[in-house]
Amino acid sequence: MTTRGTSLIPTAQRGRPVVPTRARWQPLGLDQVRITDGFWADLQDRNARTMIDHCERWIERMGWAGNFDAAVQGRLPGDRQGREFSDSEVYKLLEAMSWEVGRTGDPALETRLLALTARVAAAQEPDGYLNTMFGRPGQGARWSDLEWGHELYCAGHLIQAGVARARSVDDRASDPLVRVALRLADHVCGVFGADGDQRVCGHPEIEVALVELFRVTGDRRYLDQARLFVDRRGHGVLADIGLGRSYFQDDEPVRESTVLRGHAVRALYLASGAADLAVEDDDADLLAAVIGQVRTTLARRTYLTGGMGAHHEGESFGQDWELPPDRSYSETCAGIASVMTNHRLLLQTADPRHADAVERTLFNVLAASPSAEGTAFFYTNPLQQRVPGEVPDPTVPSPRASSSLRAPWFHVSCCPTNVTRTVAALASYLATADDHGVQLHQYAPATIRTGDLDLTVTTGYPVDGRIEITAVTAPDEWTLTLRIPSWATGAVLTGADGAELAVAPGYPAVPGPRAGQTVVLDLPVHPRWTVADPRMDAVRGQAAVEAGPLVYALESTDLGADVAAARATGDAPRRDADGRVVIRARVDSIPSHDWPYGVAEVSEPGELRDVTLVPYHAWGNRGPSTMRVWLPREGVQEA
Amino acid sequence: MTTRGTSLIPTAQRGRPVVPTRARWQPLGLDQVRITDGFWADLQDRNARTMIDHCERWIERMGWAGNFDAAVQGRLPGDRQGREFSDSEVYKLLEAMSWEVGRTGDPALETRLLALTARVAAAQEPDGYLNTMFGRPGQGARWSDLEWGHELYCAGHLIQAGVARARSVDDRASDPLVRVALRLADHVCGVFGADGDQRVCGHPEIEVALVELFRVTGDRRYLDQARLFVDRRGHGVLADIGLGRSYFQDDEPVRESTVLRGHAVRALYLASGAADLAVEDDDADLLAAVIGQVRTTLARRTYLTGGMGAHHEGESFGQDWELPPDRSYSETCAGIASVMTNHRLLLQTADPRHADAVERTLFNVLAASPSAEGTAFFYTNPLQQRVPGEVPDPTVPSPRASSSLRAPWFHVSCCPTNVTRTVAALASYLATADDHGVQLHQYAPATIRTGDLDLTVTTGYPVDGRIEITAVTAPDEWTLTLRIPSWATGAVLTGADGAELAVAPGYPAVPGPRAGQTVVLDLPVHPRWTVADPRMDAVRGQAAVEAGPLVYALESTDLGADVAAARATGDAPRRDADGRVVIRARVDSIPSHDWPYGVAEVSEPGELRDVTLVPYHAWGNRGPSTMRVWLPREGVQEA
Repeated sequence: MTTRGTSLIPTAQRGRPVVPTRARWQPLGLDQVRITDGFWADLQDRNARTMIDHCERWIERMGWAGNFDAAVQGRLPGDRQGREFSDSEVYKLLEAMSWEVGRTGDPALETRLLALTARVAAAQEPDGYLNTMFGRPGQGARWSDLEWGHELYCAGHLIQAGVARARSVDDRASDPLVRVALRLADHVCGVFGADGDQRVCGHPEIEVALVELFRVTGDRRYLDQARLFVDRRGHGVLADIGLGRSYFQDDEPVRESTVLRGHAVRALYLASGAADLAVEDDDADLLAAVIGQVRTTLARRTYLTGGMGAHHEGESFGQDWELPPDRSYSETCAGIASVMTNHRLLLQTADPRHADAVERTLFNVLAASPSAEGTAFFYTNPLQQRVPGEVPDPTVPSPRASSSLRAPWFHVSCCPTNVTRTVAALASYLATADDHGVQLHQYAPATIRTGDLDLTVTTGYPVDGRIEITAVTAPDEWTLTLRIPSWATGAVLTGADGAELAVAPGYPAVPGPRAGQTVVLDLPVHPRWTVADPRMDAVRGQAAVEAGPLVYALESTDLGADVAAARATGDAPRRDADGRVVIRARVDSIPSHDWPYGVAEVSEPGELRDVTLVPYHAWGNRGPSTMRVWLPREGVQEA
Repeated sequence: MTTRGTSLIPTAQRGRPVVPTRARWQPLGLDQVRITDGFWADLQDRNARTMIDHCERWIERMGWAGNFDAAVQGRLPGDRQGREFSDSEVYKLLEAMSWEVGRTGDPALETRLLALTARVAAAQEPDGYLNTMFGRPGQGARWSDLEWGHELYCAGHLIQAGVARARSVDDRASDPLVRVALRLADHVCGVFGADGDQRVCGHPEIEVALVELFRVTGDRRYLDQARLFVDRRGHGVLADIGLGRSYFQDDEPVRESTVLRGHAVRALYLASGAADLAVEDDDADLLAAVIGQVRTTLARRTYLTGGMGAHHEGESFGQDWELPPDRSYSETCAGIASVMTNHRLLLQTADPRHADAVERTLFNVLAASPSAEGTAFFYTNPLQQRVPGEVPDPTVPSPRASSSLRAPWFHVSCCPTNVTRTVAALASYLATADDHGVQLHQYAPATIRTGDLDLTVTTGYPVDGRIEITAVTAPDEWTLTLRIPSWATGAVLTGADGAELAVAPGYPAVPGPRAGQTVVLDLPVHPRWTVADPRMDAVRGQAAVEAGPLVYALESTDLGADVAAARATGDAPRRDADGRVVIRARVDSIPSHDWPYGVAEVSEPGELRDVTLVPYHAWGNRGPSTMRVWLPREGVQEA
């Protein structure tokens, strides 16, 4: 027994998903930032009321939690259910429950969390190893398939669950989930240490988990192990596969890469882990490498929604500028992983483009995944839907990317649990603190308390651009830093004294309001046309509507016709009296021919009319439809 | 021993890949049509000199021919090399050798063919079963994996090789390759007959092979078996797979389908077999279904090159209008399969759009695959290459779609042998005959002899549009039917009497020239701009240059810069003094930003200049390059 619970150090990390020991901006905990109303509070409510329960029920129904019972009862491998990574879904659910219990203190959820933890803990081997897929008679040997077996990936998710739990309970040392995670982490360090097995996992995840466990425990052994995994990768340490070693980032060392490539979730989890490691090691070269990769990826390989991953094949990044809206993979998990990575880089660099990426991805990828009811999820997030598709059977799991419509569950069901753990911890993205004051990154109705400071944020954002920050209590002097998004040309900040200040995109800092005073930020959230870099061939001649951080979409449900033949005018988009976004458009009559190529394809222009768009995150909630974000538009300059 | 060689009927099928017993237009044999010069003769020479040898060497080197020796020597499964379908590569090579021996009578090749046949024949089991992957101790049982095992697929290719051989030798009854094919076909009929195993193969191919074997032998048992396979498919007879049953067309019966879908090669091989079956059964409903599927596919799911298959994932068709040039899969084998299918429909329907599809696909997919040297091949045929890529090692097989450049061989190496068998039999696509005369479908320097008719075709086509058809000997009255391609607006036919006749696209028929007389067809092959249906979003705002049946491409090799920023003017493309196709274009300077979306992306226009294009089939022969067929062009109407 090697449980190291006694080494847990009592740092103030409560309720924070990421707690660098030395970042420029320190995150605030879920007990310090509370989302009180509005868009994100609604999603957190849906998570609490429905989504976590939904995941728990499906994990039971699929037998993925039962695999742990089967392990204890000696019924493996015969009774094993699910794919090789199904353990990780149980762990991600445990992480979601941990953050949620930390956020709300819900005693019923705490009971369920403990019960599920007990089943997992019972399956842990005496030496700390834990995986229901390997190591028993009739199963593959432990660590016998690092390319595809996901053993270290699953371990990483268990450790992340343990980290979440450690940051959500008072008595970390004796918490059973924390103890299971520590025992497994110790086992991993024993097997894969400097003199041990020199390989890495086909799916990065253990790296980010181990650095976070170091942050919880202060035990450098975990940090050292993360460094070994990061440094080993990229030297062909894994076997080659049909998709190529770039699929799992074993083609090129992290320090030498210039852009994210291969499987998007793998690439982004690795980037998160490498960023955390670079911060803790004060490794400027590694940090610069990750920053370069992420910024090039944002500049050339990211969808308007913030989504990442352009290929279905290999669920991978495409080439620069290769971002087809119809075949966009933009996996929900890749969006979440991008939020993880950009949040880490924001804390360290204070560069607003990372907060912009977090906001864009939260509103247009994360929020798009769950249905309005919270009982179905998008796995992929295409920017164009060519055929309406069929509503998936709510009682049957879907293949991962089979339908245009949200499905209740998937055979590879990484996304729903990933959504729940992220939504439960959403408040951590709103604000940070440093010695001078507080920084606001994301805008939502919220309360923020840190030290002597007690702030209330009141806003109807993102539909309304007015954001009021009121100090309930405050020290005499402090600095309020506010993110002005890159699209917010013409933002105005009104100080406590009533003076108006034009603020440009970035992070302007102003004297913080005193107790009872209010600062008001006005962001221009009127609808606007957006066009793409001319090298992005797939959307040439097209434009999209955005309003504030929201990307909008045209759905056949609103058009009353297939969106394929819709063509917008150059008129500016506007809001109607009900706040909906409206454009002027035609539905052309396009002739069909035996052969679709010729000297000229002349459409017959349809009549001009007003057409309502929906926020992209809300599409697909009214039955099968065709949809497009990018619309052919008159007056979009060519090339 | 159930060899049915004695039932071979002596029909006049020599040298014809497809011989319907009742088609409207009857194909002519390779001994009747000979390509004498020009583009296709050059390719046939390359095939004879290099490509067939190249395939034979690689098949030996990979151990795929050796698998048959290993079977005889009891060294399977231990010594087996290659994937589950590697036997089929040996068979496709045998088919290529058969047509080539039939075409040229090359005695050295005949010797090699017989030697390879003997090795295959030695591995055939006493009951006729033949496959090196299944049925031995340590291997899967026969027919135990119809979804992925490719046993019937391999059998189909062996039967097609036997058919080719039967149509290329005088003594079919005793030919060893024909006998092996018959024994295997009989075995298949025994196992999968009306009262036998009710399943089908995960990869269609056996269907088309069995109908052709019926045509060779007159034995209806083969036709009946083909009908069983065609009718069984589409009812979920195979297990469901991650890609869905549409992948192998088991989602919907052939008779009820309206468009080709799923894996493109599978879909097209099935369509070929169903078309053959419909013709032999005089089954108007089945024929109508296949025609409808193919015509809708041509109208909505086919690349400008004739290529088919828009998804790398599943190597499959996309949705209607979903035809990305950069991620076009357009597998060489799918192009060949489209030629097979359209040729069959042409014979039966006399509809010129099928001959147009054959021509377009031969020039822009089949001809694009082999390198100028004939020692490397494209597997996929993208219409846009974003990164130059690296030249594959000529000594190492590539993954199937890994590189932008032609590779010497692939781990899944279906395309090279498919090219060789098709090129060897190319002459069969040029002309057909009926009771009234001869129909010319494809234009190349050639001699055509049938009955009393002896024609010589002289032309520099496709670069020169003048085609002279001279009768060496001819009956007093006969009808010459000529295909005018759909792009040929303004074609002129000059009769033997010197009278000029304007001919529209289609199949005009004129009195055939008498002995010594010449008819001249002038097709307008000047370069032209082509635009796409507005629903084809991926090429919106872009145009491509075609000249005659050739699609042209812009390569960085000629531009002296990455093609990404090239923008053509509206000026008409032209030929320069050397016959090369030239356009006017700029290379814009496109600014890069942290985020590639905004209110306007303004490029700085480059200077106007003349830029040379290359025929698409010739691209990639001068080292790594970027390439695009579709060019942003000024004046392309929006939407």
